[in-house]
Amino acid sequence: MDSFAPTKDDRFSFGLWTVGNPGRDPFGEAVRPVQDPNHLVRKLAECGAWGVNLHDNDLVPFGASASERDRIVGEFKATLEDSGMVVPMATTNLFSHPIFKDGGFTSNDPKVRAFGLQKTMDAIDLGVELGAKIYVFWGGREGTEADACRDPQEAMKRYRDGMNYLCSYVKDQGYDLKFALEAKPNEPRCDMYLATTGHMLHFIETLDHSEMVGVNPEVAHETMAGLSFTHGVAQAMEAGKLFHIDLNAQRIGRYDQDLRFGSEDLKQAFLLVRLLEGTSGSTPYDGPRHFDAHAYRTEDMDGVWEFAVGCMRTYNILRARARAFDADPEVRALTATITDDTLDPLLAAGYSSDNAAALRAVSIDVDATAARGLGYEIS
Amino acid sequence: MDSFAPTKDDRFSFGLWTVGNPGRDPFGEAVRPVQDPNHLVRKLAECGAWGVNLHDNDLVPFGASASERDRIVGEFKATLEDSGMVVPMATTNLFSHPIFKDGGFTSNDPKVRAFGLQKTMDAIDLGVELGAKIYVFWGGREGTEADACRDPQEAMKRYRDGMNYLCSYVKDQGYDLKFALEAKPNEPRCDMYLATTGHMLHFIETLDHSEMVGVNPEVAHETMAGLSFTHGVAQAMEAGKLFHIDLNAQRIGRYDQDLRFGSEDLKQAFLLVRLLEGTSGSTPYDGPRHFDAHAYRTEDMDGVWEFAVGCMRTYNILRARARAFDADPEVRALTATITDDTLDPLLAAGYSSDNAAALRAVSIDVDATAARGLGYEIS
Amino acid sequence: MDSFAPTKDDRFSFGLWTVGNPGRDPFGEAVRPVQDPNHLVRKLAECGAWGVNLHDNDLVPFGASASERDRIVGEFKATLEDSGMVVPMATTNLFSHPIFKDGGFTSNDPKVRAFGLQKTMDAIDLGVELGAKIYVFWGGREGTEADACRDPQEAMKRYRDGMNYLCSYVKDQGYDLKFALEAKPNEPRCDMYLATTGHMLHFIETLDHSEMVGVNPEVAHETMAGLSFTHGVAQAMEAGKLFHIDLNAQRIGRYDQDLRFGSEDLKQAFLLVRLLEGTSGSTPYDGPRHFDAHAYRTEDMDGVWEFAVGCMRTYNILRARARAFDADPEVRALTATITDDTLDPLLAAGYSSDNAAALRAVSIDVDATAARGLGYEIS
Amino acid sequence: MDSFAPTKDDRFSFGLWTVGNPGRDPFGEAVRPVQDPNHLVRKLAECGAWGVNLHDNDLVPFGASASERDRIVGEFKATLEDSGMVVPMATTNLFSHPIFKDGGFTSNDPKVRAFGLQKTMDAIDLGVELGAKIYVFWGGREGTEADACRDPQEAMKRYRDGMNYLCSYVKDQGYDLKFALEAKPNEPRCDMYLATTGHMLHFIETLDHSEMVGVNPEVAHETMAGLSFTHGVAQAMEAGKLFHIDLNAQRIGRYDQDLRFGSEDLKQAFLLVRLLEGTSGSTPYDGPRHFDAHAYRTEDMDGVWEFAVGCMRTYNILRARARAFDADPEVRALTATITDDTLDPLLAAGYSSDNAAALRAVSIDVDATAARGLGYEIS
Repeated sequence: MDSFAPTKDDRFSFGLWTVGNPGRDPFGEAVRPVQDPNHLVRKLAECGAWGVNLHDNDLVPFGASASERDRIVGEFKATLEDSGMVVPMATTNLFSHPIFKDGGFTSNDPKVRAFGLQKTMDAIDLGVELGAKIYVFWGGREGTEADACRDPQEAMKRYRDGMNYLCSYVKDQGYDLKFALEAKPNEPRCDMYLATTGHMLHFIETLDHSEMVGVNPEVAHETMAGLSFTHGVAQAMEAGKLFHIDLNAQRIGRYDQDLRFGSEDLKQAFLLVRLLEGTSGSTPYDGPRHFDAHAYRTEDMDGVWEFAVGCMRTYNILRARARAFDADPEVRALTATITDDTLDPLLAAGYSSDNAAALRAVSIDVDATAARGLGYEIS
Repeated sequence: MDSFAPTKDDRFSFGLWTVGNPGRDPFGEAVRPVQDPNHLVRKLAECGAWGVNLHDNDLVPFGASASERDRIVGEFKATLEDSGMVVPMATTNLFSHPIFKDGGFTSNDPKVRAFGLQKTMDAIDLGVELGAKIYVFWGGREGTEADACRDPQEAMKRYRDGMNYLCSYVKDQGYDLKFALEAKPNEPRCDMYLATTGHMLHFIETLDHSEMVGVNPEVAHETMAGLSFTHGVAQAMEAGKLFHIDLNAQRIGRYDQDLRFGSEDLKQAFLLVRLLEGTSGSTPYDGPRHFDAHAYRTEDMDGVWEFAVGCMRTYNILRARARAFDADPEVRALTATITDDTLDPLLAAGYSSDNAAALRAVSIDVDATAARGLGYEIS
Repeated sequence: MDSFAPTKDDRFSFGLWTVGNPGRDPFGEAVRPVQDPNHLVRKLAECGAWGVNLHDNDLVPFGASASERDRIVGEFKATLEDSGMVVPMATTNLFSHPIFKDGGFTSNDPKVRAFGLQKTMDAIDLGVELGAKIYVFWGGREGTEADACRDPQEAMKRYRDGMNYLCSYVKDQGYDLKFALEAKPNEPRCDMYLATTGHMLHFIETLDHSEMVGVNPEVAHETMAGLSFTHGVAQAMEAGKLFHIDLNAQRIGRYDQDLRFGSEDLKQAFLLVRLLEGTSGSTPYDGPRHFDAHAYRTEDMDGVWEFAVGCMRTYNILRARARAFDADPEVRALTATITDDTLDPLLAAGYSSDNAAALRAVSIDVDATAARGLGYEIS
Repeated sequence: MDSFAPTKDDRFSFGLWTVGNPGRDPFGEAVRPVQDPNHLVRKLAECGAWGVNLHDNDLVPFGASASERDRIVGEFKATLEDSGMVVPMATTNLFSHPIFKDGGFTSNDPKVRAFGLQKTMDAIDLGVELGAKIYVFWGGREGTEADACRDPQEAMKRYRDGMNYLCSYVKDQGYDLKFALEAKPNEPRCDMYLATTGHMLHFIETLDHSEMVGVNPEVAHETMAGLSFTHGVAQAMEAGKLFHIDLNAQRIGRYDQDLRFGSEDLKQAFLLVRLLEGTSGSTPYDGPRHFDAHAYRTEDMDGVWEFAVGCMRTYNILRARARAFDADPEVRALTATITDDTLDPLLAAGYSSDNAAALRAVSIDVDATAARGLGYEIS
């Protein structure tokens, strides 16, 4: 009996592109054969996953005919049904084909922008047909190598036009679908627009239908830039905008490693699970726990399934540790809110001329307050 | 006759803390004597600067009596008058004193939060008295070493409460003052809240009086994290939120170097000046060009003034180069908008059911579009 | 009974500058009072440490008279005796005083180079008097901001001249002392010479008395640059050059954080302890386990002592985990040497014309070898 | 007449894999067709290059028969002859095939190590047949994802065994060939052994035939880790170990970008050319100026040739600027050796008891020496 074994209630999901990743990298060829999507779904179900996510072309090849597409989708829906798996999220591949080499929605070329919209509307239809409630946008080519090629303000406008267009499409179709925007600072481009979850959160506020758009932060993407992932996620949660999340592991200042969740920077992984689960008392995240990771190139398919189970078990182990941490009386004492009978009501009351006068009149013992040790180095 | 010599029309400003920096660092003592603020103002005027900025304690020592404060301020105002210098921006030092060791507005301790508000209201009064129209907030201690000490969502709320309070104070006093928030990813804390200009732009949208709050991006702060500075600034400009800017230089993944503007990553400096000056056709930034930099520790005061002139001349040289670049016919041809008689009107019209049907019906030659070379490697 | 409590047999040491660190940083003043060195030694002894290390000026102020120096040293030796503590390592402060602002041994100015030698000879005498067997060199100012100021090849020569001079001094005095060189890529300078343990190891081979010179790698210094600390340490160990080690924690791409050992990147800390302790079967490191770390600025002196105990307990916990890991049969199976009856003797024999002909004649099943999964993603 | 146009005297070379790079990346398919090596050679000659370098499989496909190999090589030699091009350097592809997924020379599997030796001996034969005098080793797979899989000290030993074997092979064959080892900190592995040029320089000293082994530093590889490229190159030059160099451009903390030389961090590129050309008075580097870069994915083949010319012209422009810089009287004055009649002879004499006594007796005016400004912030 493994108390950390994944169950459907954990709502763990994997992309088809993750466990199906053949292990090609910039310096090496594939190390594993391409896998049939239906096989992947069945194996994920066996491992204890709840959902499977996909880019349009993970399932339906680029340029497939309508009848081929329908045949593939029909078989896949049957497999989902048989295996009891759901598709919580879908997305569009706007980065693999050379047509997107200098951008999708932000390209200088209207042909590329138009094709990006066509492809995404088709892919949204596909996602909705499969039951997806979340639609992710990762603008892998929205950025530059030669930055002088495009006014970055113009790029913002084009990006916004694209998102507004697609929001309207979803509403017009009556789809029950929300968008989740995924930031990344660089790679494959030298510099990408809307580099972090912070930039995305602001961009969303400028959209016509911002209420249906949130973020999909990815551990690896924020960590590449050395940013605190938990701070960015917390900002999104506090704003009610954490619609989806991509769990994996990454070292700072590297290429996009997409390593197994928890395999690097265990402390950040712990802090993240603690935040998502709300063990310290805040509202937990209730969306899918999605792993956007892939196994080492050293592995064959057996290793891939070990990897998948490892992602999920690590999450469950960290959840148990987070609960234990926040139940610990020493931790509780150290993180408890400090109260002050004079100041608390004054601060809670917010600004008014009178409140400010009262606040300014309070004499604070600066040296004593400064000297207090906070006990964070507890051994 | 130096055609790049700074003039008042260039609106260059320096902080008192920049040219007055004695060159102390974590591993070494001061290499230059502390300078009298009045002397710094007179020398900056000689060098061709237009403005001087300050933290409260750059001018008035922490804990000074009211009469001492008034005497110091009176003398400083006379010096400004004599030298024809203005104070475009002021700010609060909420980071040097040990009381702020675990945060100012986000501290767990209400005494610290209250003291932060008291100190800032006083410092706003000082800034306004000196003529400042922009008030900067850099939350140097708003972050953590031991991240478990505080729920980061709670930190967001406290930060917001602080900003709302102070916005109300400014409005209540009838001050003609805008706020500009300055992000930094780390240092002096391990991780700081609202790590980038993107995070700040979103945070501002959640404030009670967001219309009076914009950003003050700093080259060094975004560059530490390896982010494209111009992309972040462009996002702020496009949103009408670039209220101030801190110009300096920095290498990626280092401590906060605050080097002379243009002395590292010359291409980014060029792209930034091009963006601020709008030489490619976009609306230019019309605020102060502020240098938040300091001279190498190898320098005596003569070197400091060479440094100050160097910052300003470099900006002017880059402005001239940006104008020449965007006047070049080859550049114009490469960056010109691509037009398409069929697609342009369809894209410009935005979404409707009919427009979308028409857009989806357009057949795009994917291979031909993909094969087109864009000419960015022009030799 | 705490089974991880430090004992003298663990050979843990701290610098006076670590537990005595008052917590000043580039943006803030000291948060703790300066501590008497004798008090620090007594407290370290209480905490379970075995040794204490020092820079000359940690004990004897810069510019102290000979009699003052002797009085201080006499008292300190008595304290060491009383508390049963040793001084395993000493070093010179060649970075705090402004005279070193553009280098010590590599300065363009012969006055600075000469003063560096004078100061170091005095400091070596002090270290030897206190019983030190290891003398560390950290060239905190050996580098540049304005790199054009000095031919870096000339800097190598000057650095070597300095080290050769001091090696000869030690031999001439008949001291039983080895040197350990400590690399750092940047900070306080923009770029420092001999940036990593690898560069140092090579430099050592070019010295007149390389046999008495090894390295003192520091976790934080290699990690700043995102390098694998264990790989560098392993290279030094394999070469018999790991004479000392500085244990702490650091995030990649940051200022020099010197955090508590194990508090960041727990996996690297585990791998390091495993390597130092030789639990996988290799020869263990037998020198001091030195912590070059300091407590968070949030702490008072109680927190500093919690921090010190925490460094040592974390090491002991990781040692226990490393032993358990390498005793695990699954781990043993995965990391076992793969044998091949044909190839092993051919490879072991080394090169000869005949061996090479034989090796080339062996037919290797490339596809089968490539397809083998290595099992590193074990869940 | 373009005074910066490349000529044969400039000794510029490109890898077949650079101008022939089809632009595939981790997130996208090839954007340019695969090019015939003979065509590439003819075009490089037209552009003004002097040499072309190659991996074995850039010319001869993996697994080609002996007769196919000979036919290909024969045609290629004729093309070289016709176009007046040379092959100054060759190397082995020990990274693309899945057999190398967990290392070549350092693999745990003797089959892989043996195959690596077989393949490299064949590739050395090929390189020598084509006239190469330098043989590069880039150990793209010599490293780890799961670091616990192998004792890093054992990896050092295996790496050394491999290099010793191949040195002996070259000597035994009577080849006029030197080895140049190329370091990289990470990618494609998470962490690679011998991470920097410094680590390589030390490793070389441990080889049986170290005299025939030097380094091949690459701008991008050292820059990824934020290290000063010029410092590492200077250390190699000073040791007589700079046997080859890979010129390109890179931003710190990113994936391996291999951008056009000079297109990022122009100051470092300038300092590098200055060092290689010896314009400040030191001995110049006399080997090939090799570009290991590739054009943006936005480019078609026309853009690739613009890129190639751009690499070479940028080098020539920077050479001219370096000469002008070092001819400038102000620069000369700032970088001139400081002399001191008393100290210079004492320092030049090196250590003796008497010299040391004399040196210690000199009174140095510490405050005056410290106060001197060095003038590096010249405007």
